Amino acid sequence: MKKHILVIPGDGIGPEVTTWGKAVLEKIGQDYGHEFTFDKALMGHAGIEATGNPLPDETLAKAKASDAILFGAIGHIKYDNDPSAKVRPEQGLLKIRKELGLYANLRPIMLFDELLDASSLKPEILKGTDILFFRELTGDVYFGEKKRSEDRNTASDLMIYSRYEVERIAIKAYEAAMVRGKRLCSVDKANVLEASRLWREVVQEIAKQYPEVETEHMFIDNAAMQLVKNPKKFDVVLTANLFGDILTDEASQIAGSMGMLASASVGDGTGFFEPIHGSAHDIAGQDKANPLASILSVALMLEISFGLKEEAKKITDAIDKTLKDGYRTGDIADTNTDKAKILGTTAMGQKVLE
Amino acid sequence: MKKHILVIPGDGIGPEVTTWGKAVLEKIGQDYGHEFTFDKALMGHAGIEATGNPLPDETLAKAKASDAILFGAIGHIKYDNDPSAKVRPEQGLLKIRKELGLYANLRPIMLFDELLDASSLKPEILKGTDILFFRELTGDVYFGEKKRSEDRNTASDLMIYSRYEVERIAIKAYEAAMVRGKRLCSVDKANVLEASRLWREVVQEIAKQYPEVETEHMFIDNAAMQLVKNPKKFDVVLTANLFGDILTDEASQIAGSMGMLASASVGDGTGFFEPIHGSAHDIAGQDKANPLASILSVALMLEISFGLKEEAKKITDAIDKTLKDGYRTGDIADTNTDKAKILGTTAMGQKVLE
Ligand SMILES: CC(C)[C@H](C(=O)O)[C@@H](O)C(=O)O
Ligand SMILES: CC(C)[C@H](C(=O)O)[C@@H](O)C(=O)O
Repeated sequence: MKKHILVIPGDGIGPEVTTWGKAVLEKIGQDYGHEFTFDKALMGHAGIEATGNPLPDETLAKAKASDAILFGAIGHIKYDNDPSAKVRPEQGLLKIRKELGLYANLRPIMLFDELLDASSLKPEILKGTDILFFRELTGDVYFGEKKRSEDRNTASDLMIYSRYEVERIAIKAYEAAMVRGKRLCSVDKANVLEASRLWREVVQEIAKQYPEVETEHMFIDNAAMQLVKNPKKFDVVLTANLFGDILTDEASQIAGSMGMLASASVGDGTGFFEPIHGSAHDIAGQDKANPLASILSVALMLEISFGLKEEAKKITDAIDKTLKDGYRTGDIADTNTDKAKILGTTAMGQKVLE
Repeated sequence: MKKHILVIPGDGIGPEVTTWGKAVLEKIGQDYGHEFTFDKALMGHAGIEATGNPLPDETLAKAKASDAILFGAIGHIKYDNDPSAKVRPEQGLLKIRKELGLYANLRPIMLFDELLDASSLKPEILKGTDILFFRELTGDVYFGEKKRSEDRNTASDLMIYSRYEVERIAIKAYEAAMVRGKRLCSVDKANVLEASRLWREVVQEIAKQYPEVETEHMFIDNAAMQLVKNPKKFDVVLTANLFGDILTDEASQIAGSMGMLASASVGDGTGFFEPIHGSAHDIAGQDKANPLASILSVALMLEISFGLKEEAKKITDAIDKTLKDGYRTGDIADTNTDKAKILGTTAMGQKVLE
């Protein structure tokens, strides 16, 4: 198989972790005889520094020309505390999602048995949890019109959804539910929001086409609670952009650490694969970041974009083995036991490669 | 002290639990020589059934004439699954919040030692947690303009904030931080939302007036995660209406159960006190609901609206004692140990009274 992959390291720990994602891709290419070629491009703060643009034209062109994209992380503390900044790193990520039509963000929450103790939830609550989130990615209050009054004293964002946007992601989620546990929970706030009422209407309609799937509708406040109370009860979770942002980060604690979670953004064309963790500037450049989420992003890429299931499994097995051997990065080490062998980014990446 | 209290039982388990909140108020009145008088009014589904209006005019008039309001719960499954219903129980609650100017919702997350094991979080993660949420209650996407296109295929809600709305709740939150741990975390999504950028600007300004308080700004996705990961790190949390709805319900799991949490909505006039749990129609009328959140609502009322600290403490002490004696309602019973004595609503209410 011949594939061209664009690597966008982004900001903060992005470059460090994508180095290892890429290294694993190269190794898989060698071992299985695939011809993976690579290119590199800038986005986010890195894009702004070099070109003034969080999504340089060249990056977008390269993205469109590639078969898949491996992304690192985005964001910089400088903008976070300056609410008046006009140009912001995150705009790059939002724009590429929109431009590539990446409307479905898939976030699997899977548990490595070895890490059951790294979570703040009790192991008996966690054990057996296996959730696949479908977060809508190109609509909602993220892309609705933003306004600031002339006196700057009033600010607004429009939370907006159209039928076709809900339909296309609902279908993807139901298709996934059919080959999983046949349970789907759609999360909204239909008791208050009109956009949620449309969301619920459309999901109820699509549900009729999948009578085998057991559908539940849940309010976001309740879902945020149930996820902590009893994560096992969820199979496929379908939700809008903003609620999905919140729920998936919350759910990351189930997996013990953000450092262990990857996500796939797919839609009409090229797929986009990234860890769900952020740029973590506090540990950037210190060889402390956990490269496993980037490596897992690569596994998702192989499976979802290239249909290479065996190769993907090879990667998750390698991670499993590394964890079973007791190796940990700082974020997933259980500080109560001393048996963990704590590694930096480089050493952890190398262990998985081996 | 002479006070007139309006009881609004509302829907589902509301009537059962407010019975016990009221009974505890009466007992406190007798024991401490206060003259508490009561009236009763309808709201929510109960209001719709009787008058067609989720907030009947009579209820609003009585509410305005009272010194404090004890509320039960709102909502009915009938409307939840009918996204096209025009009249909905929740409108009653939203309208009374707006009409009474109840812009600040205070939700203390306190842990009863006896219930450490009832949470899905590990006791060592929980121990020492003591958070006071300030959720803005009369703005945001809850009250912004709602639209549905003529063909019904597009729906929107306006997320909107004005400077004064942020200022007044920020001041309340900082004042509370000053008499607590002097740490305040303001939660927003300023990397994406204009309304959040205004929010952050205003909080940064107010923060300057409270140099002793250590201020942190956190994105909602991160906050949803940190709350599970390390709840102890929070003291006062200040946030907007929608984010507050989600975070406080999530935080309820920290306290072991929603059945243990009360909230106070305050602003310009009469205070409004309610459990944070919902109407729970599945257990309504079965003598299964936990009355403790309603009883704790009364403790908040005594402290916040009437300044009766000693009486409030009497109530929390009584609850503490009841729990220490091993009495539990179903929702907070630790099913792994058999020592718990499981009681119904009535028996639990009576134990606390004793
Ligand atoms: C960086 C930010 C704009 C982004 C989002 O909110 O979508 C991030 O939190 C994510 O979840 O990918
Ligand atoms: C019933 C509903 C409208 C309400 C809200 O979302 O505010 C409830 O969830 C709450 O938190 O008080």
